[in-house]
Amino acid sequence: MENSAKTQTEIGAAVDAVLADYRLGRAVDQMDVFNQPDREAVVDIVVKLQHILFPGYYRDKVYRSFNDDNRIAVLIEDVIYNMRKQIAIAFRHSDDYRGASDDTLECGARRITLEFFKRIPDIRALVNTDLQAMFDGDPAASSYEEIILSYPGLMATTINRIAHELYLLRVPLIPRIMTEYAHSATGIDIHPGATIGRYFMIDHGTGIVVGETTLIGEHVKIYQGVTIGALSTRGGQSLRGVKRHPTIEDNVTIYAGASILGGETIIGHDSVIGSNAFITSSIAPGTRVSIKNQELQLSGSSSGRSEAGQDESWCYII
Amino acid sequence: MENSAKTQTEIGAAVDAVLADYRLGRAVDQMDVFNQPDREAVVDIVVKLQHILFPGYYRDKVYRSFNDDNRIAVLIEDVIYNMRKQIAIAFRHSDDYRGASDDTLECGARRITLEFFKRIPDIRALVNTDLQAMFDGDPAASSYEEIILSYPGLMATTINRIAHELYLLRVPLIPRIMTEYAHSATGIDIHPGATIGRYFMIDHGTGIVVGETTLIGEHVKIYQGVTIGALSTRGGQSLRGVKRHPTIEDNVTIYAGASILGGETIIGHDSVIGSNAFITSSIAPGTRVSIKNQELQLSGSSSGRSEAGQDESWCYII
Amino acid sequence: MENSAKTQTEIGAAVDAVLADYRLGRAVDQMDVFNQPDREAVVDIVVKLQHILFPGYYRDKVYRSFNDDNRIAVLIEDVIYNMRKQIAIAFRHSDDYRGASDDTLECGARRITLEFFKRIPDIRALVNTDLQAMFDGDPAASSYEEIILSYPGLMATTINRIAHELYLLRVPLIPRIMTEYAHSATGIDIHPGATIGRYFMIDHGTGIVVGETTLIGEHVKIYQGVTIGALSTRGGQSLRGVKRHPTIEDNVTIYAGASILGGETIIGHDSVIGSNAFITSSIAPGTRVSIKNQELQLSGSSSGRSEAGQDESWCYII
Repeated sequence: MENSAKTQTEIGAAVDAVLADYRLGRAVDQMDVFNQPDREAVVDIVVKLQHILFPGYYRDKVYRSFNDDNRIAVLIEDVIYNMRKQIAIAFRHSDDYRGASDDTLECGARRITLEFFKRIPDIRALVNTDLQAMFDGDPAASSYEEIILSYPGLMATTINRIAHELYLLRVPLIPRIMTEYAHSATGIDIHPGATIGRYFMIDHGTGIVVGETTLIGEHVKIYQGVTIGALSTRGGQSLRGVKRHPTIEDNVTIYAGASILGGETIIGHDSVIGSNAFITSSIAPGTRVSIKNQELQLSGSSSGRSEAGQDESWCYII
Repeated sequence: MENSAKTQTEIGAAVDAVLADYRLGRAVDQMDVFNQPDREAVVDIVVKLQHILFPGYYRDKVYRSFNDDNRIAVLIEDVIYNMRKQIAIAFRHSDDYRGASDDTLECGARRITLEFFKRIPDIRALVNTDLQAMFDGDPAASSYEEIILSYPGLMATTINRIAHELYLLRVPLIPRIMTEYAHSATGIDIHPGATIGRYFMIDHGTGIVVGETTLIGEHVKIYQGVTIGALSTRGGQSLRGVKRHPTIEDNVTIYAGASILGGETIIGHDSVIGSNAFITSSIAPGTRVSIKNQELQLSGSSSGRSEAGQDESWCYII
Repeated sequence: MENSAKTQTEIGAAVDAVLADYRLGRAVDQMDVFNQPDREAVVDIVVKLQHILFPGYYRDKVYRSFNDDNRIAVLIEDVIYNMRKQIAIAFRHSDDYRGASDDTLECGARRITLEFFKRIPDIRALVNTDLQAMFDGDPAASSYEEIILSYPGLMATTINRIAHELYLLRVPLIPRIMTEYAHSATGIDIHPGATIGRYFMIDHGTGIVVGETTLIGEHVKIYQGVTIGALSTRGGQSLRGVKRHPTIEDNVTIYAGASILGGETIIGHDSVIGSNAFITSSIAPGTRVSIKNQELQLSGSSSGRSEAGQDESWCYII
């Protein structure tokens, strides 16, 4: 069968070769594991924050208390404790705290965490408007419960509202870890920097991209595959901080697959953007935009199923 | 460092402020945690149902029995027990059971759960046809095992077939929690109301949307980014129950990115819909539809990489 | 309430009916659970391999050692052990090992696992170039840590580079389970067969599809919704192994939503493909391709929000 001494040697050599490879001083070789936020801890925090925002949907796995307040109070204290810890670590990556002592970092983290919790009632007020908008706008929604328990649009929006407050409080790394968790779970990629007004509705949602410097008003609805993005950013890092993404005013609806691009593009209030439209300049308020009817080519086929000429296959991606 | 008495007071105040915010009587303030289905329990049920449908892929974490039947029998009883429990809770949200006693709810849940299990052989017969279609249609598929172990299209289709039976049995909330779990895992969003015939094939799948009142025949194939959706539903809740989504007849293939919309739209049997086509009216049987060749604009560039004029940047979304 | 003897009988009958349904000899009825890879074990391996590639981001849940090398050495040995085990099982599905003895399978699995680990330094060198490309190309990236901790593009690329080596080593099933895990987590679907050069950058990523026989050069950037795919593959299984997907040369950028199709299509070096372009034939080096400006139709509306005529609704997918 196998010579196990030989195998041991080979495994030892394989391990040593990988360990040696860690000493080349590149970005991938960084070994400073306890000086950066723990992704799993951050995901745990954002999952629990969703429970704090929707307390009726939180089942404690350990305790089942008679008093809802006690149950949730324990949860809130847990999140405060862990958020402080992760923020203190994240601040080591902040220009604001360059060279600061551990005490200063921890003091800052405590202050920011408490400030964040003070904003939770405002976040909940916003999320309640989103819930309302998603119910009113979707004939397939049978109840608020269904939306809270299952709609990816509400999940992504809620996590964005949480992450956006931390982004405004200048916390590094953590807001983006939160929104990328939402992106992974929903296919909806909203940067924590995006500013979004009340009564925001997303339906289906897969493939939505909303960029960092986007401004969105109230009562805006967007559907699957919509990009609110930058034009070419070949400038790369030189464009950091510049407004690169559009402004969407109140009461705008953007249908599936539309793209709206550029930092100077403003979609005026009460406009409707049709499916698949590609927009790179401003649109006046109250405008309905649609792409001109696509020219389709129809051809009959006696069998339809297997006799397609290879020359027509250009139109079939798989 | 920090004054811990002061910190305790501040944390106490933050907790109290959040608890006070729960008393405003809005949808987000609902606290009725034990009167609604447990999302995690429902996901556990649908994961185990997949094992019941594909028994050869189920490894019991606890027992390793000599007899496959015993192993799976225990699993089936577990799912029956938990499904009854979750359905009884879900029925409190059903118009059919408004004001019913707990006994009536539990009796109904038992009846529906057993009825669902009676349909499992039919579901398995359907899923076996899907597996066959996905193998036959994909040159990258090397075996049935590969499809069962890794293809998102089979997972989304299987969960739809499970959820659809519960939808037909008028179970609230649970079917949508199941399909949104599949949506999260696969990027494929099929409403539990959609009716889908035998030999259904999905490839890649990310971004697919299939609406609640869609009817799909046999031997239909759809690729990534396809929408089978409604036209504008500005009517919102007033459109509940109305047929808003298309009918796709037998032997139709719909290539990547195509959109087919509207409750009166019928795609006739043996038709082929090309990539990115946007269709809002019926198509006769045996038709091949493609969009007319897109006009492309080509320009040379000596360097290609960095000298793009800003005026041309409209075509670059990021 | 309920007659529990009757219920027991009903449950027993339901269980028996499902068990009977397993005896029909179809693909779904296969019961050979210990002769195929364990999906959860493979996902565990690929998660740990990411930690081995980025050792600074790995927190051991059990041990917290003073010596990073010891911590990681234990992890590497664990992965070697489990990978050998899963590869030995997978080889039972390989034409190369048809009819081979268990000893031969295990010997082959040991050899391939060690060979894979010898390639880890090369994989890490590649991944370091991807990290560099994603940082340089994205104005929203604030640090390498942010990319490693949160960017789906880096995750999908890293897992593809791992799976691709196993694919080259002719391991069945496992590479695809790995890339479909990445697909599920990121919405990015790259087949393990795709060959990708250094400095590969993906941004946003949801909806990207890269087919099995694709060849991609160095310094290539692709954005969300890009398909690098086959033309119609109605040939199904008869096309296995044929080059069906494009070649993308060095320094090419492909913007959101573009589709490039066909095994003979070559995108020449230093080209730029604009958003939503649909390309099925080769493009000369240094070419900038964009679709001609879409014709939009704008109409004012006094209220904008609710008076849309039904006749215009064709442009709104939901």
